[in-house]
Amino acid sequence: MPVNYSTPSPDQLHPVPGVRLGVTEAGIRKKHRRDLALIALDEGATVAGVFTLNRFCAAPVTLCREHLAAHNDMRALIINTGIANAGTGAPGLSAAVNTCDAVAKTLGIEARQVLPFSTGVILELLPTERVIAGLDACRNDLRADGWHNAAHAIMTTDTVAKAASRRVTIAGKTVTITGISKGAGMIRPNMATMLGFVATDAGISAPLLQKLVKEAADASFNCITVDGDTSTNDSFILIATDKNEIQVNAEGTPEWVAVRQAIIEVTVELAQAIIRDGEGATKFITIAVEGGKTREEGRKVAYAIGHSPLVKTAFFASDPNLGRIQAAVGYAGIDDLDVAGTRIWLGDLLVSEHGGRAVGYKEEDGSRVMKESEITVRVDLGRGLATATVWTCDFSYDYVKINADYRS
Amino acid sequence: MPVNYSTPSPDQLHPVPGVRLGVTEAGIRKKHRRDLALIALDEGATVAGVFTLNRFCAAPVTLCREHLAAHNDMRALIINTGIANAGTGAPGLSAAVNTCDAVAKTLGIEARQVLPFSTGVILELLPTERVIAGLDACRNDLRADGWHNAAHAIMTTDTVAKAASRRVTIAGKTVTITGISKGAGMIRPNMATMLGFVATDAGISAPLLQKLVKEAADASFNCITVDGDTSTNDSFILIATDKNEIQVNAEGTPEWVAVRQAIIEVTVELAQAIIRDGEGATKFITIAVEGGKTREEGRKVAYAIGHSPLVKTAFFASDPNLGRIQAAVGYAGIDDLDVAGTRIWLGDLLVSEHGGRAVGYKEEDGSRVMKESEITVRVDLGRGLATATVWTCDFSYDYVKINADYRS
Repeated sequence: MPVNYSTPSPDQLHPVPGVRLGVTEAGIRKKHRRDLALIALDEGATVAGVFTLNRFCAAPVTLCREHLAAHNDMRALIINTGIANAGTGAPGLSAAVNTCDAVAKTLGIEARQVLPFSTGVILELLPTERVIAGLDACRNDLRADGWHNAAHAIMTTDTVAKAASRRVTIAGKTVTITGISKGAGMIRPNMATMLGFVATDAGISAPLLQKLVKEAADASFNCITVDGDTSTNDSFILIATDKNEIQVNAEGTPEWVAVRQAIIEVTVELAQAIIRDGEGATKFITIAVEGGKTREEGRKVAYAIGHSPLVKTAFFASDPNLGRIQAAVGYAGIDDLDVAGTRIWLGDLLVSEHGGRAVGYKEEDGSRVMKESEITVRVDLGRGLATATVWTCDFSYDYVKINADYRS
Repeated sequence: MPVNYSTPSPDQLHPVPGVRLGVTEAGIRKKHRRDLALIALDEGATVAGVFTLNRFCAAPVTLCREHLAAHNDMRALIINTGIANAGTGAPGLSAAVNTCDAVAKTLGIEARQVLPFSTGVILELLPTERVIAGLDACRNDLRADGWHNAAHAIMTTDTVAKAASRRVTIAGKTVTITGISKGAGMIRPNMATMLGFVATDAGISAPLLQKLVKEAADASFNCITVDGDTSTNDSFILIATDKNEIQVNAEGTPEWVAVRQAIIEVTVELAQAIIRDGEGATKFITIAVEGGKTREEGRKVAYAIGHSPLVKTAFFASDPNLGRIQAAVGYAGIDDLDVAGTRIWLGDLLVSEHGGRAVGYKEEDGSRVMKESEITVRVDLGRGLATATVWTCDFSYDYVKINADYRS
């Protein structure tokens, strides 16, 4: 059960003019589940993406990078779940190439205009023939209101589909932003998350869109962790279809400010949804670090806390065993950290100061906060002005169960 | 249940002339368990230590560093379990100072000749009065064959006491090395482990002993991880009592070679015992990386695999979901790693090469290896001659259970 999250209803997901989505049950790994999604873009859209930094990146990631580097007239995205097509070497790359060829033939476009994505088990070959056999059904299913279906068709261990949508009005004109994401385990995105797709009908120039996709990823997907495992397939794609009267041509303009803000809101909602549905999660935890010399050292501390199995199991147990948080702050890698200058809060409770237990802190108060389903840990490093936030979840029996059973 | 490990019997632990050990039930955190150990050293012993790099290091660690930096005529070690006396600020330091004072009075030595150690819950104050009240009983219990008792008196979540002993003969003269360790969770030592004490009756000069304690830690305790959490209390102490005819005066001598080798064997055995008794462990896993440009990058890869909750739960499930190992190699932080040049073995099975699945690899073979209780993962990075080895365990329901319940 996700923590305080449910999928928006289909009518809450506004169509984005210029984008149509179709899905099918292609039987890629299991039968009777939607596992293949096709996203078709009208001519004129601009597309930008960020991808995993994992050196064992998946074949489709390699191909996406190549296609986006060469041109910017993308017309289709093809996404399968079940098999990640990662760790598959040359045969995996052939499978991705063949998939793009088949999508091109199905839609009457060129293969270089297709971006492929896969998610699922690593080290197994993609059954390309099943993907190809499902393409006609996807094409026949293409519809502007297909976001809800597509969000379902890209799930793996996700228990709920993840989607978000916004409409903002700028000088009387409406801009729509709608997106979907997937992910629940192997989540510690480094540049992007395990599949996120966001589209707007505004017109945004390619360099600005590339800047925006990075900023949005840094504010959202790059701030989450479930288990510290950076996926081989992380991909986050931002699409601007240029189908309304809003043109984003320069930074700092009212259009830039409003569209950027709405895109970041959508991506943060999608990123947080991944944590709320984190494998085995029972709590949503915000780790807010302040007083760092740099954002980077703040992130080190936030991730040390967010990755600690001891901290995460204590949250699961609602046990205010908060020395574990001190320990994580201490080993986070700031070699000259003066712990006497640090402070740690659980919710609004000051727990640690002067390198020790805060005088007013009572364990029964800590226990009360630990029982909540949304908890904030705040750390003041006391050495600067930089801040960093990471969102994570607790670590439960079900995490082990899910990952000991996955594939079975 | 530890993986293929049981505590040596008392008669397998050779006394070290110049060292006597006594224990008692001081009721520090729980009643009716041995929780306080006193180690008394005869005059003339040399002592060296390495300690945690955690910035939130425990008060006794701070005091040990001070005492060892100032003099080298230590006469006693006092070790309590139950409370770690870490994250306790100025009151914690006072507690450690008062403990040393009381030990000095009990034994008729100076407080600066006492090294204090604590292990247990962080962020809680040490009940110094209970420690002090137990000192007479410890003193009255002092005996040369007290290693077995002491190994029990320093346990926390350990399910078995950990000890090792060797005798080596050099030019007809016998040297004894005996040691104990504790630890099962919050194990990712950085300089040393959560309490290890090894003594020999050889005479070893202070500079050589300091060099040796680092080398032994690097070959043993610094190669293990249970959960990636570096403890606040890690301490590894090496004692040379100078009670036999063997003098180690220079590197490279026959005495140095033989004593060094035996000390490393004892520390490796103690370090591996911690993994075999890792919280919830059902398997002992060796991760051997070769072909690195540097040892450091080999260690990065080994630890990425050894810390991945996905890899560790797959081992627990005996599921050869080996793409998770590829993914960990890929995100370990070698930015210019060419995955096409890497190879991965599970036991003797070549699983991955040329960036993809090895042609001859069959999943049923992988399943067979995964069912064993001792498994080696071998990774060839294909870019140099450096090697690195890390020992770890799997990740089970019981890890969550133990850490969700600890303190309760």
